[in-house]
Amino acid sequence: MNYPQISKPTLLLDTHRCKANIRKMIQKAANSGFVLRPHFKTHQSHVIGQWFRDEGIDKITVSSVGMATFFAMNGWDDITIAFPVNLRQIEEIRELSQKIKAGLVIVDPETVDTLGYELTENVNVWIKIDVGTHRTGIRPEDTFTIDLILDKIKTYPQLSFAGFLGHAGHSYQSHSVEQVERVHQNSIEVMNNLRRKYAGAFPGLKISLGDTPAASMVSDFGMMDEFRPGNFVFYDLQQEEIGSCTRDEIAVAMACPVVAVHPDRLQWIIYGGGIHFAKDFLTLKDGRKCFGRWAKPNGNTWNTSHAIDDPFIVSLSQEHGVIQCTEQSFNLCKPGDISLWLPVHSCMTAEAMGGYLSTEGEKIDHYREHLWP
Amino acid sequence: MNYPQISKPTLLLDTHRCKANIRKMIQKAANSGFVLRPHFKTHQSHVIGQWFRDEGIDKITVSSVGMATFFAMNGWDDITIAFPVNLRQIEEIRELSQKIKAGLVIVDPETVDTLGYELTENVNVWIKIDVGTHRTGIRPEDTFTIDLILDKIKTYPQLSFAGFLGHAGHSYQSHSVEQVERVHQNSIEVMNNLRRKYAGAFPGLKISLGDTPAASMVSDFGMMDEFRPGNFVFYDLQQEEIGSCTRDEIAVAMACPVVAVHPDRLQWIIYGGGIHFAKDFLTLKDGRKCFGRWAKPNGNTWNTSHAIDDPFIVSLSQEHGVIQCTEQSFNLCKPGDISLWLPVHSCMTAEAMGGYLSTEGEKIDHYREHLWP
Repeated sequence: MNYPQISKPTLLLDTHRCKANIRKMIQKAANSGFVLRPHFKTHQSHVIGQWFRDEGIDKITVSSVGMATFFAMNGWDDITIAFPVNLRQIEEIRELSQKIKAGLVIVDPETVDTLGYELTENVNVWIKIDVGTHRTGIRPEDTFTIDLILDKIKTYPQLSFAGFLGHAGHSYQSHSVEQVERVHQNSIEVMNNLRRKYAGAFPGLKISLGDTPAASMVSDFGMMDEFRPGNFVFYDLQQEEIGSCTRDEIAVAMACPVVAVHPDRLQWIIYGGGIHFAKDFLTLKDGRKCFGRWAKPNGNTWNTSHAIDDPFIVSLSQEHGVIQCTEQSFNLCKPGDISLWLPVHSCMTAEAMGGYLSTEGEKIDHYREHLWP
Repeated sequence: MNYPQISKPTLLLDTHRCKANIRKMIQKAANSGFVLRPHFKTHQSHVIGQWFRDEGIDKITVSSVGMATFFAMNGWDDITIAFPVNLRQIEEIRELSQKIKAGLVIVDPETVDTLGYELTENVNVWIKIDVGTHRTGIRPEDTFTIDLILDKIKTYPQLSFAGFLGHAGHSYQSHSVEQVERVHQNSIEVMNNLRRKYAGAFPGLKISLGDTPAASMVSDFGMMDEFRPGNFVFYDLQQEEIGSCTRDEIAVAMACPVVAVHPDRLQWIIYGGGIHFAKDFLTLKDGRKCFGRWAKPNGNTWNTSHAIDDPFIVSLSQEHGVIQCTEQSFNLCKPGDISLWLPVHSCMTAEAMGGYLSTEGEKIDHYREHLWP
């Protein structure tokens, strides 16, 4: 592979694949009549954010106050922080709310009082509903707590109740269109029951959902107002396994130098470990783990049209990756070569790498919350 | 917990525990007669490196060319890069060899020719032996390849054969002193067989080993010249499980805001996910995963003298951590509190966080190889 400028693990970004993923999702939103509020925690990039803006996107989602501030600095002025309000960052939230239209997520009544007391500017307040993932959120049948929250919201004029927000993270356990559709239809039903119950008091309340499997695989989205998928911008092997994408739609690949080959066990060692890929893995049918799959170098990008499952990354330590080959694949690389690997979980890999090299040879930024500036 | 300055996930470093770990290992090396060449990939810090220097350490190990350059800038002048030579970084290696006494690790004969051709200054060349981990290195019985490498080394006057280097990474699978000692004694035997075979031609050849379980648990180290443990500087739950340390010796803890509590399933949600802790885990006896364990805040540090296994981190996503409590522990925290967590794998957590806050309130640096400066 002819990447003379690559000497160490580097995250390649195929701009054509990435922009095609963006356009396809925007088209889907237009056809289905929902507002697309893409989750920017996957790419965390001003440059990639601009690609969304170029296609007309003006509302986004992030997962931390720091990330919201990062995108606000870049001109985004309608940002939902899809994470329970972190009271320890109330001062940063106050500053943010003075600059942009901020959306906050509430999971308990006490936090509403703190927001009401501390914030001066208008913010949108979403109630997080647990649509079945059981990570966080209020159970939909717990209308006692929902009522308590709404009563508190009403007492603070600067807090506007935006509606109910959910994330069907359990769709990531699915392996078919039917399963993903069932999860989504269940979320829609849960959320619209709540809408019917509270629409009298809050006629403009909205329903916000968002997961990449449903965004990619569902054809009839039902009654919802906005959708917040994020991963689709890159996709990855996890999404391929669920069925959200083809392998050829995956828009990022790790470029890693091969540093050793071991013919006796048909393995290579690459410079590229857990600190580069992160450690998410697929479990193969034979019980082995897979931390990444081979992509075939093709000019300044890669080719998966004849995708094979050989070779793959069978283990990762801090800087080492161990590649399992077969006799057919073993001679594809020798020490000193660059090898390309599709990641299992692109959000985590992008976060670990902190930047991209585009197929046009450009450096692409990634937000990194430094502990110390 | 009274950490008013902490508003988001922060890696706390207990300087007393850390310095005690350093002194204890240096004492052990002095008593056992081996040279301690600590692996700095765990802490990656100029400040913590200085704590080693203050105790007389002047030789170190790192795991990448970038990390070697980082420490060379800080005055370290005897550095082994314990990772197979990455030929794509030959220019950086050349620059490094002009500034310091560099140790390089060889696993194949061809690489020796590149070094001989490209390098002008004297470097130490170690042959990496696979002492049983089967990650990389030459199998000790493969003297054909070892001879080939040595013949090549002899032809380049600037390449000095330093000796045989191994890493018994399989000691991490151990759960008792006996298992760790058995792994170590086997490494010693393998390495000394090679020493006997090659000492005639290379009378000064050395044996270098290095893993934290053996460094911590073995009492009779046998015939070896230097040892390169790294993790002991902090230790972690993985090392506690192996038996390398007590829980009270673990010198780092993540401080994370609690953002939600769910009494129905006795769980908290913390702001602190895979991008902060990394995703290494222990597997509990009941099959659940454990990504971190509770530490009890105590002034500006924490207390584990009455260590309990409750609560613990049962899952991590990008920014969310899910904490499993019992009825006894559930009321220990409420949203807005800071909770403390001992990490499973401190090297990976330190890498993910990129900096420390000491128990004296000081910011401590951590190397981070930025993709783009």
